[in-house]
Amino acid sequence: MQQDKLSLGAVKVKKVFETEWFSIDAISQKKSHRPYYRLSCNDSVVIVALTEDHKLILIRQYRPAIGTSMLEFPAGQIDLGETPEVSIKRELEEETGYRCGSLSYVGPYRVDPCRINSMVHLFFGKDAKLTGKKQIEDEIEEVITISEEEFKEMIKDRKFIAASGVGFYSLAKLKGLF
Amino acid sequence: MQQDKLSLGAVKVKKVFETEWFSIDAISQKKSHRPYYRLSCNDSVVIVALTEDHKLILIRQYRPAIGTSMLEFPAGQIDLGETPEVSIKRELEEETGYRCGSLSYVGPYRVDPCRINSMVHLFFGKDAKLTGKKQIEDEIEEVITISEEEFKEMIKDRKFIAASGVGFYSLAKLKGLF
Repeated sequence: MQQDKLSLGAVKVKKVFETEWFSIDAISQKKSHRPYYRLSCNDSVVIVALTEDHKLILIRQYRPAIGTSMLEFPAGQIDLGETPEVSIKRELEEETGYRCGSLSYVGPYRVDPCRINSMVHLFFGKDAKLTGKKQIEDEIEEVITISEEEFKEMIKDRKFIAASGVGFYSLAKLKGLF
Repeated sequence: MQQDKLSLGAVKVKKVFETEWFSIDAISQKKSHRPYYRLSCNDSVVIVALTEDHKLILIRQYRPAIGTSMLEFPAGQIDLGETPEVSIKRELEEETGYRCGSLSYVGPYRVDPCRINSMVHLFFGKDAKLTGKKQIEDEIEEVITISEEEFKEMIKDRKFIAASGVGFYSLAKLKGLF
């Protein structure tokens, strides 16, 4: 097994398709004649944030990839030159109009290691207040704040079906952040 | 907002890149001149499975997309013509050599609705026994079984960093399956 890892230095990566948001790389693996294809893009950020009255902030967002909208935690791709912290503050305020009184960094996680090479940086925020600086973003259909008990019911009732979102919430809980 | 949903019928989807495992579609959106790009592939399956002595089954798998290996729950893409149930039984036995005494379907979830149009079907299994029918799969470096307490420590210590994996475990817990 160690041999596989060491031979990675000889792996060749070639960009075979490109859009404004991501590219597709073909990775030539020594052991195989068939290349492996991955989606390559900037890292992203996501936040599990609580309002001053201890409610979770969720957004209902239209997702063109699936042709429908769904509930998720506020998130976004990191812009060129941004730190994850600057990025998550910007995304949260643009998408929801909230700014957190305190923010902590939980860490970088993998969302789809099978196919995507980027990481998502998870933040936990508290004491979020409305600033009135929500941007007009067409794809954000609704911002909702709900109690933790209501959120758990939502998960059980399949009203929240983002698997990584359930993971982000559980990570913040397991780390003892709330 | 309702208007956006209704206008979906007029959305045009065009395949612009293709590999053996997935394709990239350009989605023309009425409101914008810029197409939206998504990755289109078969649905997949994943299982949170417990052995007869109540230990969780994890695999350490080499992921070419990220150039390293990581711990995850057994999972895989559904083959053409397979049901999710047949697929997860096959994947679990091929990857780990285990077969479950009982299996329940938790439901379909989204892993990356921002970019990927497929769903992952989550199963929960109990009383898994070794059958000896593990396939030689180069990318599976290790199969480990650990207690739930050890798994939670692993998550806290960043030894398990698959966000959706944390979500799958938590979904099975929230649904009261173990």
